[in-house]
Amino acid sequence: MAADPAPILVTGAGGFVGQALVRALAGTRPVIATDRTGLDNADLPGVTALPGEIDDPALIARLTAEPLGAIIHLATIPGGAAESDPALAARINVAAPMALIDTAAAHGNAPRLLFASSIAVFGDPLPQHVDDDTPVRPMLRYGAHKAMLEEWIATLTRRGAVRGLSLRLPGIVARPLAPSGMKSAFLSNLFHALKAGEPITLPVSADATCWLLSRRALVGQMTAALTLASDPETTRLNLPALRVRMGDLVAEVARQAGADPARATYAPDPAIEAAFGAQPPLATPAADAMGLRHDGDLAALVAHALADL
Amino acid sequence: MAADPAPILVTGAGGFVGQALVRALAGTRPVIATDRTGLDNADLPGVTALPGEIDDPALIARLTAEPLGAIIHLATIPGGAAESDPALAARINVAAPMALIDTAAAHGNAPRLLFASSIAVFGDPLPQHVDDDTPVRPMLRYGAHKAMLEEWIATLTRRGAVRGLSLRLPGIVARPLAPSGMKSAFLSNLFHALKAGEPITLPVSADATCWLLSRRALVGQMTAALTLASDPETTRLNLPALRVRMGDLVAEVARQAGADPARATYAPDPAIEAAFGAQPPLATPAADAMGLRHDGDLAALVAHALADL
Repeated sequence: MAADPAPILVTGAGGFVGQALVRALAGTRPVIATDRTGLDNADLPGVTALPGEIDDPALIARLTAEPLGAIIHLATIPGGAAESDPALAARINVAAPMALIDTAAAHGNAPRLLFASSIAVFGDPLPQHVDDDTPVRPMLRYGAHKAMLEEWIATLTRRGAVRGLSLRLPGIVARPLAPSGMKSAFLSNLFHALKAGEPITLPVSADATCWLLSRRALVGQMTAALTLASDPETTRLNLPALRVRMGDLVAEVARQAGADPARATYAPDPAIEAAFGAQPPLATPAADAMGLRHDGDLAALVAHALADL
Repeated sequence: MAADPAPILVTGAGGFVGQALVRALAGTRPVIATDRTGLDNADLPGVTALPGEIDDPALIARLTAEPLGAIIHLATIPGGAAESDPALAARINVAAPMALIDTAAAHGNAPRLLFASSIAVFGDPLPQHVDDDTPVRPMLRYGAHKAMLEEWIATLTRRGAVRGLSLRLPGIVARPLAPSGMKSAFLSNLFHALKAGEPITLPVSADATCWLLSRRALVGQMTAALTLASDPETTRLNLPALRVRMGDLVAEVARQAGADPARATYAPDPAIEAAFGAQPPLATPAADAMGLRHDGDLAALVAHALADL
């Protein structure tokens, strides 16, 4: 009889992405799920919930008490919230994961490590074209924290302590309406508003362009990345995403939701347009070669996103 | 009567570089010197000593109580010590300076910030040629910490919060004999041994090549960098350094110290040779253009280093 595979630790497991990821992993192998709140997946097969604050050394010790087969690190203080509380953000986004990864790696089994990084590492304004060679140049604290942890994971991967891969997430739609501390919340709020037939004022122009991915496609990319061979020279990956024009997105969401697209109006905020609405063509050859896929087309992206509401 | 200029804060002021830097700055403008120990410069004109642990929020608050004109951040847990105590090193090398810089920047006066980074950001093996475009690829924890803080300072400089410049220090000779936690200590110990006529076994080969700078030349570079205009697109600088062959260094130190060069023998340790003895030609056009200079030639480097013993 084969022994159980070593468990996968998922941090931020109570969040929008974490919940779906734990559902996708449950039953395939043991899962340890942690978050400060929202862990309602504990009844899934093979899922152990260990709630707590990720910067608590006692929690870190419990999470890493046995060797982990893999870690998917999603927990974060996002962009807007990080600007509001820099000390908390530095602790949760940088110091805590450094400690968690070190403690997990101390077992010596070089666990697979997927880190939810962000396109925020590129900052703004973006170059006219983004690909795997585009240098990082964050402007938000959040983006700098992500770039710093990418560097840490790259180093530990070269050292053989972990088999790390930082996945730079584009805009994920459609997140819940609850305040998430994300400056890009309007991207998800659009889906909620049109589905409810309510008006929404978008802080970008109709010609704004955004890189988007549904949660379903992201979870597919993450579960695929979990089993890919680790390459110490490729530890940072831009994820394939659809580049969508805001006016086209509004029209497609309205069509599928049976809503009037005129419920969405545009009042561009120059800072938001620059940070989230001026995303140029994106090439992701490394991720493409690994078989990671975005939603395919706008209709599929919108259908996947609406299915999550 | 002109008001006093805003003070310069020097962290790590009790260390080998810090002591000489405080001496060079004393009398030119007010200096706040901090270190956990070794602050014997408090009697110099205009120098205020505020000793303490740099990760102590109360100390950070005292150091930044008034707007600072500049910060020179030298305090660090070096390479070997960082490998021995990863948690301490992460706290002192990453978390504490992030907090210190944020707190200082909160006055809104965009202080000048010089950060003592390290060539350890390049890791090993090094490429056949290193210049201003060589990407970072640390292997030591210490090097990763330096690269992470460089990223943080670059971001805060783009945001206008500080006017930052990370200076990547090569090997600085000749540091005191006391255990410094540095894996490159043999470079300094060579000077002490030959001056004392004692034998020394070097953990590299006679053909090993190292980038070296005297403390005197480094302090000159730092005081020059203090007054340079800040450029948000150039926040990381490889410092000009002499590339020296170990056998030539031994011969010149022996000549100037009146010692027998045969007192130095070679027992190369492959890891030390790779990390510190295989440094290729180094081009530093950005620093050269700013007027930063190394010691000039091997005889001057050795004379400057011996003068510090």
